[in-house]
Amino acid sequence: MRALRAALVQMTVQEKTEDSLARAEGFLRKAKEQGAQLALLPEMFCCPYQTKNFPLYAQREGGEVWQALSGMAKKYDLLLAAGSVPEVDGENRVYNTAYVFDREGRQIAKHRKLHLFDVEVEGGISFRESDTLTPGSSATTFDTPWGKMGLCICFDFRFPELVRLMADQGAQVILVPAAFNMTTGPAHWEILFRTRAMDNQLFTLGAAPARDPSSSYTSYGNSIVVSPWGTVLARLDEKENLLLTDLDLELVEKTRKEMPLHHGRRHDIYP
Amino acid sequence: MRALRAALVQMTVQEKTEDSLARAEGFLRKAKEQGAQLALLPEMFCCPYQTKNFPLYAQREGGEVWQALSGMAKKYDLLLAAGSVPEVDGENRVYNTAYVFDREGRQIAKHRKLHLFDVEVEGGISFRESDTLTPGSSATTFDTPWGKMGLCICFDFRFPELVRLMADQGAQVILVPAAFNMTTGPAHWEILFRTRAMDNQLFTLGAAPARDPSSSYTSYGNSIVVSPWGTVLARLDEKENLLLTDLDLELVEKTRKEMPLHHGRRHDIYP
Repeated sequence: MRALRAALVQMTVQEKTEDSLARAEGFLRKAKEQGAQLALLPEMFCCPYQTKNFPLYAQREGGEVWQALSGMAKKYDLLLAAGSVPEVDGENRVYNTAYVFDREGRQIAKHRKLHLFDVEVEGGISFRESDTLTPGSSATTFDTPWGKMGLCICFDFRFPELVRLMADQGAQVILVPAAFNMTTGPAHWEILFRTRAMDNQLFTLGAAPARDPSSSYTSYGNSIVVSPWGTVLARLDEKENLLLTDLDLELVEKTRKEMPLHHGRRHDIYP
Repeated sequence: MRALRAALVQMTVQEKTEDSLARAEGFLRKAKEQGAQLALLPEMFCCPYQTKNFPLYAQREGGEVWQALSGMAKKYDLLLAAGSVPEVDGENRVYNTAYVFDREGRQIAKHRKLHLFDVEVEGGISFRESDTLTPGSSATTFDTPWGKMGLCICFDFRFPELVRLMADQGAQVILVPAAFNMTTGPAHWEILFRTRAMDNQLFTLGAAPARDPSSSYTSYGNSIVVSPWGTVLARLDEKENLLLTDLDLELVEKTRKEMPLHHGRRHDIYP
């Protein structure tokens, strides 16, 4: 067993950024007390999920939110995939951005959401991230003391090509800050995390905000950890909570040996 | 509603080819009586699933099994995706082959399994199709009066690239003669059919042999039909049975419009 203790933070997003940061920190402290080595925060954990809010809450890379998160990674000695936050660049473009910090608080990766969530389901959810957000321009994998990992944000995870690309780049763990809703969550959340894990024979971890029925966008919650065989190792309900799971990273190699899906691909047939 | 009534035949495979054909015909007659327009038979429905049997049961394209199946398509006026059968070519190579016949009994497609099932799961299934089978060399889509469809066989369906390719070629319905087992079936069968349908926003139909605990390879059964939203429309248990389902083909376009997964792809990021 090559173990990694992961903590997923399913927290309630607050109106004020500093309140969300304080709430996140409470969970990170608890995660550290319980032996976590890696922590994952949800998508837009410090900005209520509305298109109009993204520019209002956005900060530059290196700004106050960034500094607070870097400080927490160092203080609690955690590899911190710090959910996602609205980021503004020098030309006033706003992104849905995930920063990753090592245990010294140094930024080791940054992912800007590639696929914006523009949907309109009859009798269900309607949302247009592209009203205020700009998409990113590259996939994200990075080295850690526990091997290579990949990260994508929520709607990105719907595209099997992206997860395959991260797997091909060597990722053995895929981190997904996300916020499915009450239309897509019950329909798709679990099978997506299970099938992406099974297809690529790696761990998938999804952290979502806790459900807040009073918010305009209601998060499904159900933060989840799935094994390379596609088995749900741990899953929350909709309430605020911390989800701790020990990942046996040797399962990646074992599963790939038992069912050679990687080497079995027919690159002569499909691109 | 643009409707297609599909019949999936979950039958018990017999020792003798003619007995399996007779059994299949009984179900096709019943399917026709109940208004089916399309019928799908399981993988290797007339050859007990063992590597040593494939060469013993194999026939040439146009041989007796082929003729019987063509005749049934015509007799029962069905678009017939005739499961899969062992096929031998002029150089003694054996394939796991699916023939598709139109309602006049003319062959309109032929798929040779592309990805052979070579797995060895600790405490679970071990099998090596490649001991006696040769893989095919192309993906399979074809036109029907109900639009374009795609077909692949069992282990083929594990490769998201292949299903994506068929979808990109215009398939709105994916037919999968399959035979998952008691290791992979409970773990992966349903989520595969649901996620492939959801990712590609098309119908997926999987027909499996009925479970026969006395056989050396025990089929999971659970023949299934899934909508473009990833919803299970119909599903059998493990017993021999006919599964009739009305597909509303308009759901393909509706789902793709509501959640533009196709146009949302980032071809600048992944190949």
